[in-house]
Amino acid sequence: MFRHHSQPLVSAPAETAVLALLLAEGPLSRVELARRTGLSSTAVTKAARPLIDDGYLYELPPERTAPGAGRPVNPLAVAPDREYFIGLKISAGELFGAVCDLRAGIRATAGRPLNECTPEAVAVQVAGLVDELLDADPAFRDRTRHLGVAVNGDVDRDSGRLRHSGLLGWRDVPLAELLAASTGLTVTVENDVRALTVAEHWFGEGIGTEYFALVTIGSGIGSALVVNGRLLRGAYGVAGEVGHVCVDPTGPRCRCGARGCVESIASTDVILAAVREAAANPRLTFGEVVGMAREGSPEACEAFARAGRAIGVGIATLVNVVGPERVVVSGEGVDAYDLLGRHIQDAYAAHVFGAASRCPLSLRPLPWEEWARGGAAVAIQALFPQPASPSTIGVG
Amino acid sequence: MFRHHSQPLVSAPAETAVLALLLAEGPLSRVELARRTGLSSTAVTKAARPLIDDGYLYELPPERTAPGAGRPVNPLAVAPDREYFIGLKISAGELFGAVCDLRAGIRATAGRPLNECTPEAVAVQVAGLVDELLDADPAFRDRTRHLGVAVNGDVDRDSGRLRHSGLLGWRDVPLAELLAASTGLTVTVENDVRALTVAEHWFGEGIGTEYFALVTIGSGIGSALVVNGRLLRGAYGVAGEVGHVCVDPTGPRCRCGARGCVESIASTDVILAAVREAAANPRLTFGEVVGMAREGSPEACEAFARAGRAIGVGIATLVNVVGPERVVVSGEGVDAYDLLGRHIQDAYAAHVFGAASRCPLSLRPLPWEEWARGGAAVAIQALFPQPASPSTIGVG
Repeated sequence: MFRHHSQPLVSAPAETAVLALLLAEGPLSRVELARRTGLSSTAVTKAARPLIDDGYLYELPPERTAPGAGRPVNPLAVAPDREYFIGLKISAGELFGAVCDLRAGIRATAGRPLNECTPEAVAVQVAGLVDELLDADPAFRDRTRHLGVAVNGDVDRDSGRLRHSGLLGWRDVPLAELLAASTGLTVTVENDVRALTVAEHWFGEGIGTEYFALVTIGSGIGSALVVNGRLLRGAYGVAGEVGHVCVDPTGPRCRCGARGCVESIASTDVILAAVREAAANPRLTFGEVVGMAREGSPEACEAFARAGRAIGVGIATLVNVVGPERVVVSGEGVDAYDLLGRHIQDAYAAHVFGAASRCPLSLRPLPWEEWARGGAAVAIQALFPQPASPSTIGVG
Repeated sequence: MFRHHSQPLVSAPAETAVLALLLAEGPLSRVELARRTGLSSTAVTKAARPLIDDGYLYELPPERTAPGAGRPVNPLAVAPDREYFIGLKISAGELFGAVCDLRAGIRATAGRPLNECTPEAVAVQVAGLVDELLDADPAFRDRTRHLGVAVNGDVDRDSGRLRHSGLLGWRDVPLAELLAASTGLTVTVENDVRALTVAEHWFGEGIGTEYFALVTIGSGIGSALVVNGRLLRGAYGVAGEVGHVCVDPTGPRCRCGARGCVESIASTDVILAAVREAAANPRLTFGEVVGMAREGSPEACEAFARAGRAIGVGIATLVNVVGPERVVVSGEGVDAYDLLGRHIQDAYAAHVFGAASRCPLSLRPLPWEEWARGGAAVAIQALFPQPASPSTIGVG
C-alpha cells in the first residue's frame, strides 16, 4: 500500500482483532468478543475504549440474554458512517467507482468511459470520478481518506505497483503513487479478483471461513483463495490461476502458450468463436449465442457444456489442492449460468476427492458495482496494520 | 496430538519463535534472532534464558564479526542431544523406526515386518520396536518422551485419530491413544506425506520458505503444501491431492472413481500394468520394466513418458494454484527418475504459468528412514504449543 498521509487506525493486536471481528460479523457482546479473540474481557474493554472514543464503535442498548441471567450486556457495534471508502474498478474502457461505508455497504456509485488509457490519463480521470463521488454528500467529503483500486493484472499491493496488465497494456506502473498524487487519498491497489475475494471473505459468503475460494468466469477465468484467513499470494505473486489449470494436455492452445488450460476451453470468447465457426456466421454476438443455446441449438449447447465441464474440473482441482470450506462462482459469465451450471456441478462432483465433496459451490451474480466494492474492501483493510511478517515456521 | 504426560517445552510466543528459528536454521546471534523474530534484544535474551538453563540452548564461544566491530557476540545454538525423539513409519507390511535428535538428525534405526495388522497388534509391535530403539543407548532411554508416527491415510493430528487408511484397511482408529498406552510416550500421529513435508520444511530443502511443496511419486502420488509457514490442511482434511488432479477427463478410471487423475496414469502400478499388457507378459516385475525402459524398449519408455507428463502437469497445477517457492519431488518412484525426469520437467515447464516458472523442482531420493524421520519431525513439533486458533480474518 502506498501511504499518502494516513496511518492505520489500529495497531495493537487486541484492537485489530476486536475491530476486524465487529466489521465482519456485526454486533457482538464483550463476552463473545473475548471468547472469539481469546482475549480477556478486560483486554476487550481496553481495546474497544479508544475505538468508542473515536466514534468507530458504539454500544448498543443493553439487552438481557435471559430473565435473571445476570447484569445486562451492551453489545458493541461498528458505526458504519464513521468513515467512508472509495472503491474503484479500472477496466480497459471504463472506470467504475463506489462510496462504501465501514462495513462495505454501497452508498453511492458513478462511472465514466475511459477514452484514453495511459496511466497518467487514467489518474486524471480517476480524480474527476472521485470528486464526483465525494460531491454526492458532504459527509463523504469530510470522512473519506482511503481509495481502494481493483485492477486486472499482476499487482504488488505492498508497493502499490501494477507489474503487468495484459488487458490494459500496462507494465510496471506505480499506480498507487500516481493515484495518491491525483486524488490526495491514501491508495491501496489490488488485483481485481483478489479484491472481490476480500470483499466476499470479509463482508459476504466467506464470513467466518478460514479457507475460502472465489472463482470468476467470463472472458477470463480467475480465482483467488483465502488460506488460514489470509489471501493466498504465492511466492512469485502467482496463485489461484484456475484459468491456467490444464484439463486436457491435447486441448486447444491457450493465450498463455500452454495447451488445454481451463480458459482455452471455457472463456466466453472461446464459446463465441466455437459457435460462430459451427454456425458459419462470424457476426454472431455472445448474446445471440446465449439465445441460440437457450433455444436448444446443439452447437451452442455443446459449446457451453464443454466450457462448463472444463470449469467444473478446474474447480475440483482447486478444491482437491487447497481444500476451501466453500467456493463462490461469480463473474460476468454467470449470466449464462443456466447454460453452464449443470455441467459445472456435474464435472465438479465427478472429480472432487473424498471428504472435499462436502465443499459447496454457490453462485453469486456480479453487478459492476461489486468490483468497485472489492476495491473499497481492500481500502477498509488499510485501517489495519500490515500483518507482521508471518513467522516462517508454524507448528501444525 | 494425544498428550500422554508431557507438556510443551515452550509456551510464550517469544520462546516459541526463538527455539523454532534455532532448530531450523542453526546457530544465530541474539542480534540476528531479534532481527528475524521482530523481538527486542532484551526479549530474545529473556526468552533464551530458561531454554539455556534447561540445557536446550547453549552459547557458542564468542566470535568477533569483524576487527574492531564492537563487543564480541556469543551465538546461540540448539544442544541436539538434550532430547531424543522416536519417529515411526507404519506401512502395510512393515514398521520402520528411528531415534532422532532435536535437529532431526538420525541417531539409530530399526525395522521389523508386520505380520498382523490390526491396530491392537500393531500397538504391541510398536512397543517392542520402541524398546529396541531405546536400548541402543542409555541416553535415548533417559531423554526420550515423544513418539511421532507417520502413517498412510486421512489423519486428524489434533485428536490423534486415523480417520481412514485404505492401505492399512483401518477406519476411525484412536491411534495416538493406543500407542501412548503401549509405549508410555507422548504420541503425535500425522499423515505420512505431511510428516515428510514437515521434516523437509523444518530441516531440509524447505528451510526458510513460506510457501513450499513436496510431491511423492510411486505406487501412490501425493503431496503436501506449506503456506505462510504452516502445513495446509484443508477445511475438510483434504489438501495437496495432486494424485487426484484430473489431467485428462477422458483418461483411465482412477481407484478414486474419477477419470484421468494423475495417479491413474502415473502410479508405478499403472506403469507396470501397461508394460505387462504391451509385452503380453503378466509376470514382469517393476524392476524388470525399469530395466526394459533403460534398454530402450519403446513400450516401457512410452509408459514412463506418459507417467512423467501427467506428473509434470499435476505439479504445474499445484504451482499455478498455490504458488510455492520450491517443489521437492521424492518417493520410491524417484528410483526411476532417469526415466521420468525429463518428461516431468518438460510438461511442468510447458504448463507452469507466468512468474511461477521461477519455482524450481528438485529431486530428493527417499530412503526408508526418511519416512521415520518425518515422524520424528512431527514429534519435535510437540515441543511447541498448538498454534492459537488463527484469527479468521487476516489482512493482506
